[in-house]
Amino acid sequence: MSKVVVGVMGAGNLATPKDIELAYELGKLIGEQGWVLLTGGRQAGVMDAASRGAKASGGLVVGVLPSNNTVGMSDAVDISIITDMGNGRNNINVLSSHVVIACGMGLGTASEVALALKNGKPVILLNQAELTKEFFASLTANNLFNVETTTQAIAIIKKVLTRLKDDIC
Amino acid sequence: MSKVVVGVMGAGNLATPKDIELAYELGKLIGEQGWVLLTGGRQAGVMDAASRGAKASGGLVVGVLPSNNTVGMSDAVDISIITDMGNGRNNINVLSSHVVIACGMGLGTASEVALALKNGKPVILLNQAELTKEFFASLTANNLFNVETTTQAIAIIKKVLTRLKDDIC
Amino acid sequence: MSKVVVGVMGAGNLATPKDIELAYELGKLIGEQGWVLLTGGRQAGVMDAASRGAKASGGLVVGVLPSNNTVGMSDAVDISIITDMGNGRNNINVLSSHVVIACGMGLGTASEVALALKNGKPVILLNQAELTKEFFASLTANNLFNVETTTQAIAIIKKVLTRLKDDIC
Amino acid sequence: MSKVVVGVMGAGNLATPKDIELAYELGKLIGEQGWVLLTGGRQAGVMDAASRGAKASGGLVVGVLPSNNTVGMSDAVDISIITDMGNGRNNINVLSSHVVIACGMGLGTASEVALALKNGKPVILLNQAELTKEFFASLTANNLFNVETTTQAIAIIKKVLTRLKDDIC
Repeated sequence: MSKVVVGVMGAGNLATPKDIELAYELGKLIGEQGWVLLTGGRQAGVMDAASRGAKASGGLVVGVLPSNNTVGMSDAVDISIITDMGNGRNNINVLSSHVVIACGMGLGTASEVALALKNGKPVILLNQAELTKEFFASLTANNLFNVETTTQAIAIIKKVLTRLKDDIC
Repeated sequence: MSKVVVGVMGAGNLATPKDIELAYELGKLIGEQGWVLLTGGRQAGVMDAASRGAKASGGLVVGVLPSNNTVGMSDAVDISIITDMGNGRNNINVLSSHVVIACGMGLGTASEVALALKNGKPVILLNQAELTKEFFASLTANNLFNVETTTQAIAIIKKVLTRLKDDIC
Repeated sequence: MSKVVVGVMGAGNLATPKDIELAYELGKLIGEQGWVLLTGGRQAGVMDAASRGAKASGGLVVGVLPSNNTVGMSDAVDISIITDMGNGRNNINVLSSHVVIACGMGLGTASEVALALKNGKPVILLNQAELTKEFFASLTANNLFNVETTTQAIAIIKKVLTRLKDDIC
Repeated sequence: MSKVVVGVMGAGNLATPKDIELAYELGKLIGEQGWVLLTGGRQAGVMDAASRGAKASGGLVVGVLPSNNTVGMSDAVDISIITDMGNGRNNINVLSSHVVIACGMGLGTASEVALALKNGKPVILLNQAELTKEFFASLTANNLFNVETTTQAIAIIKKVLTRLKDDIC
């Protein structure tokens, strides 16, 4: 049976201190659950903070990189998937995640939320602005969850994973 | 000197009658200008309507298809780019367009607007809801244009193309 | 009805004078037939020579570029498809061509021949070494044609296009 | 420090019994070394056999899948990377591997060997036909290793990894 993969998506250089704090917490909790953390792999912002959090709790980190090498990769990535696809790798990020969490918001993250929902993936919007929540709610009623804290995010993931298992069995 | 390519992005099966009307007008005006129309290529909604509009005014239509063949392609596509990349082709759609117009809104279109802006491409939001305009404006102040009519869209494209030319020359 | 697209694949900087001579001839003949020429789009070797040939006979040239912009693009490209996928764009090159011609050989071209055949596309090996012909013949008996001259290549394309049409009708 | 990833490439349904035997051995040896095994992820031929071998020795298996879901995935895959890119995922397979081993030969595998070498990746041709060895040797003199046994393959990987480390430090 393959491992549960949780994708944490968020800004790189434009991440806020709050985004980074939440991302680190998320990574730590994901690692504690024995789930694999998947991020965009770069040594910046949410990607790096979530990866460091997961390492701190003994988790396994997959980084799906935009370039054709590992320059600029987070030190906390265990397994690098090298795509050479730039932002085109965003679709792979979300397809490869059983659940996607958006931590912070930006153009790349917005594309990932939209692609995840388009591909039928469950998406958790963590601590997002009202505008963001309303925008995505206007596009779909399915698979979209709003939470304020990282522990609420983990609770939603557990529920969603049970449902995914029901779909399979 | 290569041709100007204008991308028209919008919903497939979920497009509204208004979206389809505007897409047809856009395609027609794009063809009249001698620009190449680029769409997602499927025989549905905005993609198909814009393509038929462009054909009606003698334009050239490029369809960037998600699957590995031409089944379900709009009859009005002249040149099919077959990606076998599903929604991953959205990044190619916007990178290959000098200007991107969003006509109607949905999950796929939202991903294309976000990816276009992320890649530094000019994006025209045509006849969009306030919520949509506010959401994207909250993510970037650059390259984003709001218009209500197709003729306003064409006027913006002309301005943007002049600016692009200035950047090159 | 969409246009016939013929892909000419071959080396960039490592192309030989003979490769470049044949590529130019091929491009010219493809343009004369009213077919669209598709290449890897760069201003180098076979890609550039075929594109210049096609322009010389009034043909339309599509360049499928590996990077995220048009720097280094052949001046003879009419429509640029910008993939930002590096060598990953090779699969799009062959999927988007009704017929693929290998003119010269190298690592990139070998990958394109293999991917084209894997995807069920007809492939013409033009003026290739015995070793190359034997290698690909050892991998498949289908869709593989060996020719020595560009006029023979055009004759094969005409036959293949008739067969493709039969398959569709 | 990220983990060493070794890619094993080979046929799916067309794999021979010998290919499958070697792939299982390879997977087992790779797992014993503590390296990550990367394959094309499908429950067929070399991909499946190598994955089962790696599991047998406690190894970690990454499967890079061509479709948009996990249907048809090898039961021995631990982490699935879902690309929805068909054969376009072959470039990701080789970019994400520190070393690529070709076990058996076919059109997909030939494309992977060519793409790996094109991207500058070390490639080990395991127990290949003379024709195959000569063909790839005619395309490049670098990064290409011929071996007859799986233990020889492991020895080459160890040498190559030392060299890669030298390049980095």
